[in-house]
Formats: sequence, C-alpha cells, structure tokens
Amino acid sequence: MNLAAIIKENQLQSLFFEGNFGIEKEGLRTDLEQKLALTDHPEKLGSRLYHPYIQTDFSESQPELVTPARPSLTEAFQWLEGLHDVLLRSMAEDEYFWPYSMPNLLPEEDEIPIIRLNDPDSIAYREMLSERYGKKKQMISGIHFNFSFSDDFIHTIFKLQDEFSDLVAFKNDLYIKLSGNFLKYEWILLYLFGASPYAADDFYDSKSARHLEKPTDYVRSLRNSSFGYHNHEEVVVSYDSVEQYIEDIEQFVATDHLSEEREFYGNARLRGPGSKLRDMLETGVQYVEIRSVDINPLDRVGLSYEQGEFYHLFFMLMVWLESEATTPEILDGQRRNLHTADESPFEVSQYQEDGLAFLEKMEEMVTTLSLGSDYEDLVQKAKAKFEQPETTLAARVSNAIDEEGYLELGRQLGLEYKAYSVDRPYVLNGFEDMELSTQLLIFDALQLGVGLEIIDRADHFLRLTHEDHTEYVRNGNMTSKDTQISYFIMENKTVTKKILDEQGYAVPQGGEYESVADALGNFEKYRGQSIVVKPKSTNYGIGISVFKNPPTKESYQEALEIAFKEDEAVLVEEFVAGTEYRFFVIDGEVEAVLLRVPANVVGDGESTISALIDKKNEDPLRGVNHLAPLAIIEKGSIEALMLKEQGYTFDSVPEKDEQVFLRENSNISTGGDSIDFTDEMDESYNHIAVGIAEALDVRVTGIDLIIPDYNQPSQKEAPGYSCIEANFNPAMNMHAYVSKGKGRRVSREILTMLFPELVQETNKINHEERKD
Amino acid sequence: MNLAAIIKENQLQSLFFEGNFGIEKEGLRTDLEQKLALTDHPEKLGSRLYHPYIQTDFSESQPELVTPARPSLTEAFQWLEGLHDVLLRSMAEDEYFWPYSMPNLLPEEDEIPIIRLNDPDSIAYREMLSERYGKKKQMISGIHFNFSFSDDFIHTIFKLQDEFSDLVAFKNDLYIKLSGNFLKYEWILLYLFGASPYAADDFYDSKSARHLEKPTDYVRSLRNSSFGYHNHEEVVVSYDSVEQYIEDIEQFVATDHLSEEREFYGNARLRGPGSKLRDMLETGVQYVEIRSVDINPLDRVGLSYEQGEFYHLFFMLMVWLESEATTPEILDGQRRNLHTADESPFEVSQYQEDGLAFLEKMEEMVTTLSLGSDYEDLVQKAKAKFEQPETTLAARVSNAIDEEGYLELGRQLGLEYKAYSVDRPYVLNGFEDMELSTQLLIFDALQLGVGLEIIDRADHFLRLTHEDHTEYVRNGNMTSKDTQISYFIMENKTVTKKILDEQGYAVPQGGEYESVADALGNFEKYRGQSIVVKPKSTNYGIGISVFKNPPTKESYQEALEIAFKEDEAVLVEEFVAGTEYRFFVIDGEVEAVLLRVPANVVGDGESTISALIDKKNEDPLRGVNHLAPLAIIEKGSIEALMLKEQGYTFDSVPEKDEQVFLRENSNISTGGDSIDFTDEMDESYNHIAVGIAEALDVRVTGIDLIIPDYNQPSQKEAPGYSCIEANFNPAMNMHAYVSKGKGRRVSREILTMLFPELVQETNKINHEERKD
Repeated sequence: MNLAAIIKENQLQSLFFEGNFGIEKEGLRTDLEQKLALTDHPEKLGSRLYHPYIQTDFSESQPELVTPARPSLTEAFQWLEGLHDVLLRSMAEDEYFWPYSMPNLLPEEDEIPIIRLNDPDSIAYREMLSERYGKKKQMISGIHFNFSFSDDFIHTIFKLQDEFSDLVAFKNDLYIKLSGNFLKYEWILLYLFGASPYAADDFYDSKSARHLEKPTDYVRSLRNSSFGYHNHEEVVVSYDSVEQYIEDIEQFVATDHLSEEREFYGNARLRGPGSKLRDMLETGVQYVEIRSVDINPLDRVGLSYEQGEFYHLFFMLMVWLESEATTPEILDGQRRNLHTADESPFEVSQYQEDGLAFLEKMEEMVTTLSLGSDYEDLVQKAKAKFEQPETTLAARVSNAIDEEGYLELGRQLGLEYKAYSVDRPYVLNGFEDMELSTQLLIFDALQLGVGLEIIDRADHFLRLTHEDHTEYVRNGNMTSKDTQISYFIMENKTVTKKILDEQGYAVPQGGEYESVADALGNFEKYRGQSIVVKPKSTNYGIGISVFKNPPTKESYQEALEIAFKEDEAVLVEEFVAGTEYRFFVIDGEVEAVLLRVPANVVGDGESTISALIDKKNEDPLRGVNHLAPLAIIEKGSIEALMLKEQGYTFDSVPEKDEQVFLRENSNISTGGDSIDFTDEMDESYNHIAVGIAEALDVRVTGIDLIIPDYNQPSQKEAPGYSCIEANFNPAMNMHAYVSKGKGRRVSREILTMLFPELVQETNKINHEERKD
Repeated sequence: MNLAAIIKENQLQSLFFEGNFGIEKEGLRTDLEQKLALTDHPEKLGSRLYHPYIQTDFSESQPELVTPARPSLTEAFQWLEGLHDVLLRSMAEDEYFWPYSMPNLLPEEDEIPIIRLNDPDSIAYREMLSERYGKKKQMISGIHFNFSFSDDFIHTIFKLQDEFSDLVAFKNDLYIKLSGNFLKYEWILLYLFGASPYAADDFYDSKSARHLEKPTDYVRSLRNSSFGYHNHEEVVVSYDSVEQYIEDIEQFVATDHLSEEREFYGNARLRGPGSKLRDMLETGVQYVEIRSVDINPLDRVGLSYEQGEFYHLFFMLMVWLESEATTPEILDGQRRNLHTADESPFEVSQYQEDGLAFLEKMEEMVTTLSLGSDYEDLVQKAKAKFEQPETTLAARVSNAIDEEGYLELGRQLGLEYKAYSVDRPYVLNGFEDMELSTQLLIFDALQLGVGLEIIDRADHFLRLTHEDHTEYVRNGNMTSKDTQISYFIMENKTVTKKILDEQGYAVPQGGEYESVADALGNFEKYRGQSIVVKPKSTNYGIGISVFKNPPTKESYQEALEIAFKEDEAVLVEEFVAGTEYRFFVIDGEVEAVLLRVPANVVGDGESTISALIDKKNEDPLRGVNHLAPLAIIEKGSIEALMLKEQGYTFDSVPEKDEQVFLRENSNISTGGDSIDFTDEMDESYNHIAVGIAEALDVRVTGIDLIIPDYNQPSQKEAPGYSCIEANFNPAMNMHAYVSKGKGRRVSREILTMLFPELVQETNKINHEERKD
C-alpha cells in the first residue's frame, strides 16, 4: 500500500494532518535542598485510586501528569499546562517539581519510598521492579507521547486502498509500520531533543549504575543510554505484525523475562483499548505510545510546543515513507539510538549524513502536503542542528548546567516554573481564555480528580465525570441541580419579586404605572418615602430619578415625565438606603458574603493619589478585560471629576489613613474593592439569603441584599434588609480572590454538591488567606 | 370622616379606583328539552372536594363558577369567561347551562337531586335548607359580586384620616358604610339590572311559592321578590357596626332562626378571611359580598362588563357619600327593593325622582374624580333608563321572552353560548392573548381543579397549586421537572449533537471547517454521500447548498466558497433523506408523534385550486397570526410560483383525489397540515426518542427525527433515522388539534407529571377525535 500516493492523489493532506495527542509526564517532588521530598503525595490531589490525570509513577515522590487524548496538539499542551498548575499549586510550599529527567539528590536505595497506596498488586509490582532494576533507576523520569491518526483519516484511507479488506488489519498494519519505522529512526529525535546530559554523583552509586562506567563528560541522553531504564537485552520484540508483537511479549512473560505484559518498556508500544495486548487483534491498535522523550529542563512543562510539532511530523513521515522497517533495521536503529545517547552534545552525529538525508525526506513531505512555512522552518532548524551540534537541546542544557551547576540549575528552574503557576492563582494556564469562574471549577475538578471534558469552549460548557456519574456544567454554576423553571424565575425580575414578597421577604415596594396621571394618583402611597422612579425596561440608568430624600409632588411628577419619555411603563420603587452585599448560596448554605466598595486609595501622608493608584494597581489580582478578579483603577476623566468634587487632583497628597474614592459606583470592573464579609455578617441575614434561595427553589444563586447595618440582626418587625436581586449566573471568582479578608472557593462547593461521593474529609476546602 | 374630601384634597382618584373583584355564578345544567339534567356533575371537572373554581351549589345539577379575587374588573371577567369555557366543554354533549336566574323545567321537589358528595355535613345542611325553603326555591340561581378596595387605598386613607387610630376599626367602618348604604340604595341597581321577569309555570307549584299570588305579568325581578330566596322576615341584622352585625347573626343562630352563620342571606354580607364571622373583629373585613345580582340572560356569561363597571361605581359612591345609612333607612331600602322587584318592567319606577337624584350624585363623583367619558356615559345611560323603563334590562328580557317563549329562548341562548365555547376548542376565552400551548395548560388546570395564577402574562408564566404543592410553569412546558443544564444542553446544538453521537444515537455526521482548503482536504470523507454545506451560524437558508445527489469535488468547492462568504466557519453535514417527524416526549414516554405536510389541496374533479383552498380555509382550526393551531393557506406569489412549476394556476381544476402542493416547506405557519402519527409510528422509533430524551436528561422535549420509512423498525446496524434536534420549548397545540388523526392533549400529561397526586383514573386524558 502506497499511503503517500493515496494521500497525494486524493488531496488528503488535511485529514492526514489530523490526529489525537496525549502527553504523560513524570517528575520528582523536590525540597529546597534539591533532595527528593519524602512527604506524602499532596493530599489536595484527591485519591490516586481514581484520579484520571494526576497519579504517581514508581515512587510516592514521583507525580505523573496524564493528559487525555486530545484531537489537536494545542489542546494536549493546554492540558499539560493546566495539570502543571494544579500539581504545583497543590504541592507543599517548600517543594517543587524537578525539571530534569535525571534525579535530584536521592536518599539510600531502601529509603526511596515506593507509592503509599492500599493496593497490594501495585506495591508488589513496584517491589519486583526495585529488585530487578534498582530503585534509583526507577527515579529517572520522562515523557510519553501518545499518538493516533484521526478516525476520519483511517476510514477514508481504508475506503481508498485495496490491500486490506478488514479495517482492523488495515489499522494494525498502519501502526506497526509507524512503530517499526519509529524505532529505526528515533536516534534522529534523540540527536535533536536528547536532554539528559548529566546526573548527580550519587546516581552513579546506585545498584544498577555501579557496574557501568561513569561518563567523563556530558552526553546527549543518560536516560536513553545504558544508565537508563530499559528491559534487559534479551527482550527483543518483533514489529513485523501486531500478532507477532503480542506473541513475543506473551512469550517473554511466560518465560519470566517480564513479570507482566506492561513490563515491556519498548520505546514504541502499541496500545489497545484495554490492558490485555491480545485484545488489539479484535479491536485494532488504538494508539502508539512513544517512551523515549527526555524531559526538556528549559521548558516550563518539560516539552516545547515546537518539539511536539516535530514529533507530529515525524509520526506522519513514518507512514508516508514507502518502506517498512525490518527487524534487523529496527535493531540497528536501537543501536544507533544507544550510540547517539552516549555522544557528546557538542560533536556532530556519527550518523550525520543519514540524519540529513532523512530530513530531506521530511522536507519533501512537508512541501508535498503544503503544510506551510512553520513546518518548513521546523525541518530547516533540525537540519541546521545536524550541522551545528552546539545548537541541539542536549548542548544547550549542558551549557546551562556548566554555568549554574546541575543541582542549582534544577532548583532555579523548578522554583521559577512553580512561581509561574502560583503567582496568578486565579488563572489556569492552558484554559485562560475561558471565563474566570469556569477556570476555577476546572482547576477544582482537575485537582480533585473529576473527569473533565470541555464540550463547548466558547459556551463554557463542561462535562464532569466520576465513574458512572456524569454532570454537565455551564459557566461554572449552572448545573443539573437547579431546575429549568427556577432559572426562568430568576431571569424574570417581576416574578422573582412577586414570589419573594408573597413569602414575606422584604423587597423594594412599589408599583407599575402606564401614565403620568396614573402614577400621580398614587403619590400619597409614596409620600414621605425615599423612592426611585424608573422606566420599566431600561437598565442603563437612562430616565431614572433617585430621591434619597422624599420628593415633593412636583418633583415626583417631573421624574415621571422624564421616565415616561423612555418607556410606556414606569416603575416607582421604594429606595432602600444601605450597603449592598452579595450572598453566594449553594445547596442551602451561604458559602460567601461579599461587599463591593468603589475604587479608592488610602493615604500614607506622603504619596500623591496618582502614586497611590499606581501602587494599588501593582496587586497581581488586578488586571484588565475581566482577565483578573480585580480591575486596574483608571486615571480617566470620571476619576478626575470625582476627585475634583472632593477638592483633589491626582497630584494631591491625602493624609495618612484617609480614604479617597475615585468612583461612585462599586463595580469590581471599574476598580472597586471586594471585601469578604462571610465571617462578619450577622447570621440572621444568612438565614434570610438561604430562605430566599429556598423560596425560589434554587440551589446555586447570588442573592443581593441591601443591609443598612450588618451587625443589627434581622427581625420579623424590622427586617433590616431588602432583596434587590437573585442572580442565576453569579460570578465565583470575585469570592475566591478578594481585596481584603478570606477568599472563598465557592467553585469547590459546587463540585461538592455535584459529586458528594468524591469529597473526603481530608479534601475540605482550602480557603486562601489574603493579607493586605 | 369625610372620605370624599380626603380623596379630593390628596388627588387619590387612582387609588380610590383600585379594587379587588370576584364573581360567583350559579346556574342549572339543562337538557335539550329544557329540563333539569339529572346526570352527575361532569366527571372531567376533577373533584369538588378541592376544586377551587368549579363547584356545585345546592343541587348536583347546579354548577357554580367562582373566580378568584382579581385586582381589576377586566381580569375578573377574563376568569369568568374562561371558567364558562371549561364548564361548557366539560358538560355532556346534550346539556347546556341555563341562562336565566329562574329555573328550567324542574322535576317534582323530591326528585331534585341535592349534591352527590361523600360529605355528611354538606348533605345535612342542604337537607335542612330543602326543609326550610323548599327545593325549587334553591334552584333559583344568581350571581355574587365580591368587592374590596385595594390595600394601598386603605392604607393611604388610614394614614391621612384622624378619626381612627386602629387600622382594623377603620377598615370595618369603611365596609359597614359601604354595606349599609348599599342596602339603602340597591333598589336602584335592581331597577336597572333586574333580569328575572318570568318563571315557568311549574315553578309556582312549588312548596314555597304555592301560598303566594302568582304575578299576572312580567316583573322586574322574581328572584328579588317574595318568590326569591331570602331569610325569613324576622331575620333583621344591624349594619351599625361590624360588632353589631356579628352579634345579631350569632343571636339568630342561637335562637335557631338560622342553622349556622352562613345561612344568613343578606344582600350585602361582610366577609372575613375565614368562615367564623367573629374573626373579622381581629382581622378586619376582607371584602363585601353582594348577592342580589340576577343572571343577565342576554349576556354570554350572565353579567355584562358594563354592568360590572356600574357596580364598581356604585360601590365607590357608597363610601363617597357623606352619610351612613341608619337601620330605618336600610329597612326602607329593602322595602323599596321588594317593591321594585314587583314592578312591571315597562313602567317608570315609583321612586323615579330618588333614583335620578342618586344618579346626579354619582355623576358628580365621576366628574370630580375625572373618571372619563366612558363612566360619564354609564351614568347618562342609567339616567335615561329611569326616564325610559322599556330600555331597562328587565324590559328587554321580557320582550325577548314574549317573542320566543321563556323555555325556547332559554334553550336558544344556552345552546348559542355553549357553541361559542365549544366551536373553537383551542382558544380559552379570557386568555386568548396568551400563546396557545399556555392556553391549553390553563384550560387543563381549570378543568382538573388545580389552583392557577398568572404571574407574568407577557412571559406566559403560571403558578399552579394544589394544597401545599406549588409548581411554576413557563410557556406551558418549562417546569421544575427539567434541569437548568438540560435546558442549556438543548439550546446548544453542538453540545446536543455531541452527547447524542457519543451515546450511539444517529445524528447527521459531518465536520466544522475554517477555510475552503481545510474543508476541501476532507472531501474524501464525504465522497459518494448526500451532503449539506452551510455557514455555521446562519439559520435562514442563506449560503446553504443541499446536495441530495453526492456532489463532484468542483461543486463541493463551489458550495464551500458560497458558504464562506456568510461565515468564518462552515459546517459540512450528511444530508439525511426522509420525512421529519416530531416526537413529543414527556417523562419517559412518547405522548404524540406528528407529521407536518406542506400546504396542499386535494382535488374533487370539479373545483378549481382556488376554490379548494377557500374550502380548506373554512376549517375553524385554521387562522392567522398563530391564534389558531393551523394557518390559512395563502394565495400569494410563492404559492402561485409553486403551482406554475407544476403547470397549474389557481384556476386549474385538479383531478379527483389528486394532491396539489402549494408550498415546498412543511411549516404549519404557512398553511401546512398536521397529521397525527402516534399510533402509526413503529414502536422502535418511540424507544429511540425516549432514549434521546434520557441521554439529554430531559423530561419534556420535542424530538425531531428524520425517518425514511416509519414502518421499517429501527435496528442497531440500520438505525433508519437521524436526530435533527431536541427542542426545549416544543409547541403543544399542534398535537392537540391536528388536520388529520387523533388530537393528543399533551398539556394534560404535563399536568399529570407535575401533579401526579391529582390524577384519578376517571380523569384520564380525553383525546379528541378529528374526522375530515
């Protein structure tokens, strides 16, 4: 079957380019002295018994991040970034993720902790591995790159080819070809991306390394060299056919060369849907798992996107090439891989010519498929590296180690990468285009080990799963726990108000009128009261008159006339004086209370207002365009005017502790402060908020109450509040990251509500304290 | 307290005009021979044990319609209309509602059935009444008019007056004044609106009428005369104060002149919140119940709106007048009422002068309050009637009886009023501005006895209650039984499709592309298939290319270029040939399947297409502007073009049984036919539709399936359908009233889902058969 010909003839370049990508990355938890952290796997990361994305590999101190298979490389990297954020923010403050494949400072072999799990099989398997390979060797970490072509591509090619009549046979042949050729040529990838040139001294004392000769200088990849973690030499598996491949592995298990099928550590493993290899004969190969990728210490997530793109090209080329690798060719390729691993990073490859010839073929494919200049550049760069070995990754890493020292560089990079994740905790890297509340919920799901799928990114639509339990969530707060009708009740302010009023909750009283005369006739009803006169359907403040002091009949009439210019119906409503608080209610409990205060600065007796604003804006929680929980305070005309009314300019210097307001409105989006009031609010108002949620039959809502004095308990005769609104889509981020007080992670409570079965006592909410 | 002065001084005319209105109307079920129907109360009307709106009065054959108190006269009348529709459509085909206060042809006294209920107290009370007043007298029916001022008015006046310091005392004084003055002046209302001038001969044979002298000619009101139903003479109750009123009634009960408090039948009764009168001293009077209103046989609902407006004016005047009636004045008023009842309708009132003087005062009030010309006209008309007795209602009714005969006129009017309700069963009079699905649900609720409140009419938002159970419903189909998230799942077509696809349901396959090249590269995927190429976000057919025959690559490219002119993303979707059916799923069951067919006529071999259209349009189910379940077929340019393409004009005469289509699209709104397929559809597709609803976790939805052959069962390997859409707001009316087949009252099933406790076997859905 000439795949390239079929693709060319039918212009299938787009389909051919489609694929599913998954990345697995292990690494070591490390303390501030570059030693292996001997602590437990972070408790916040839920249970490894079911966590789909964050596991531990061999050691308790060796977390493993596993992205799901994604239909684009971009998405796979987004997941990898997000999982790094989750892991790093869940780690102890004095730990970080070791950025090398080669270990940090390890304790004695028998002090290296294998995983602490109540799973005898897992323990036994790891004990066998310790015995067979030595524990220190298990601590070498790496990346697995999983790849498959899209189903559309497979089915289309299958229809167009005439060699196979069976889809499974066709598919298996395709992936055998990919794997065999991969093993034949992988030394080229190692030349380009080998990244483990060095190890700490104590590594060479290990049981498995002791008999080997310690390299005198940097190499391309210790991990891919004899020091690395491979099956014993006699384990040679055929890639002639999937059947042969399976039979060979089964044979090695039967003869005890392998303890189980999964102990086969070939650099290209064929994977089916289950753990039993033989099943692939029925279902077909699902994907190929590439295991030889070193962690790139110079990249924050251990693998650069460009590297990912090159791997993708490489996989494509493996099936684009006409020939399929024979067993001798594969064995030769593996030998070349070992030799390349041992080479000095600064010398040209001993197979330079073959490497360049190979890249010519890649170039030809890229051109034929019109993949564009980005991919052409990728190939050019690879070619250049074969000419200039000092530009290879291994050389660059070696130089950096030379400069800083292996351990010190590891610490620096590890801490730098951790800071990147920890410093802006409200952003989940990889998902930062989604709205902040959804990012919070995604973080919580990934942390707790809830299965996540983004079913419509633009619509912030998530699917969460745990075992047989599936939940859909939109905007982070719309769930199956609320009813369709309660959504429409909250959406309709008239209906909300009516229901609350009937049930005895205080809402602004008032009336709706269809003529000035009509409303005027009701003046007595409002005499002596503070009122608001507004057009029924306008929301932007147009035509609204607020009478904090009761109006005369003349002013009332004037206000009515203004309002009726805007709408055919006018509302007259009681004006309720006091401060507005947001109560976030989940499942019958108030989880957070927030006060929003207009943009302001507090004087220090020395700085100008302008300088005070600049200082306040340095807060990492402040940003623009809703990308941060708080907004930058502007120095615009509105702020200038507000200052002017107070007799100030931006250059005025307020006294120490004097609070100067820059805005009248308290919106967070115009620089307002958010102040947590959860613990301060009198309990009686929490009961009111919960009662309101119950009256509306809603489990997730943000209730806005105006309360003149939050210390004065609400009483039947003197309610002390007025309910302004029940929000069906309440923002969660503003509670999680506040200007002042305790942040309240309400998203975590949403998850608890959706998956009560998942929440253990040890995983209780982690409130983040904020000190100003 | 000078109420008029306070109102004038403070311009409270609008508040004074506010009120709450309730109407109760009894009447007799009558057979086609004008005899009392001796059948049971209609089974369809749920249970009288709890029905809030449709009860029976004394007799099993005497339904009583009870509107809730409404804050406007208009609404009270809307309810009265709606309740008439419900009652009349629930009656046996050969029964109607007797349009007079005076009875139809009654059987012997002991054959008149009292209510058939398992309630010993109710039975015993009615047996006592039979004994004391005679059964035939109980069959005289009438209207009770309940009225109160608005709370806003009461509270405002209370604030402004200085006579009362206690709100309850103030309120009670107001209603005592209203009631006393009413009894003093009610003869004026009787002169104007008395409407029971005549009774059938057999009425005079009754136990209670036998000893009285039968009138020789028409009178103003038999019901208000000695023949009517009143307490015995000695029962005289004081209206000096609420306390005195209660004490007097209690005294008559103690001395056995009354069996219980409710046996007091004064024409103006004070009503509190409960049945115990003494409670009013604590709570205050809630409303006044006026009992002297005769049924107006010339009005479809027994009371004209104008009459209602006059009563309203009358109530206002009762408190506007300075004086309060003394007991002698009240007794005199009652005597005048009796005399007026006995007068000939064609003679001037013996109190003409007083009547005109009274109307002068009313006129003065109307002018002072600036109530407008409609109300001025009302008073002028009343004045004219005092000059021209032949224009009074009693005279007009007498003339009509003279012409047709009492019984015959009763039959004619009763049947005419019944036809009005029955002929357009999809409209609920009084609620005809609401969307049809909501009208259906309102009808069902009123029929079954579910408490109903329209909380936002424009938003079609209902509240339904039964005992402690409350449900909110929007658009007749959005309820608490569906979740917020399933609503958003259905709203998002991408999400819906994804979920269904994953769960193994057949949906149109396809892809989304962001460039022509991108989509072109996927051509092979679609080769040999019928496809649709369309811009992602356009819905109006712009830029869509449908290839029922697989396109060549060139046509495919052309279609892509057209689509990309409209949007940045283009969808290529499998085109599924076949017929689209709508499956209405409720709570895991398919309740209706509908096929929509484009507008068409079937030839008779003689008529032109134009004539055939006219004939088809005569169907009362066809209307305009979504006010009927089916739409008029237009004779516009689109229809003309469609005919031209078939070689026809509107003047062509198709052969017998030839079906000629006038439209390509099958929308009901462009004249399409709706054909019920519930019984015809292969059961396997019902399972599919139910499964799809389950997959989306939704209880109420309209599933659109394209099915090439509905007789061919769906199979795993050959699904035989493709799911186009799951609708979150499926119309219900098109299933209830179809062009062909059985109508399916899905709204009733919604009610059953919401209130399973209410549904008894005897109240099973009533499918209406449609014969074409």
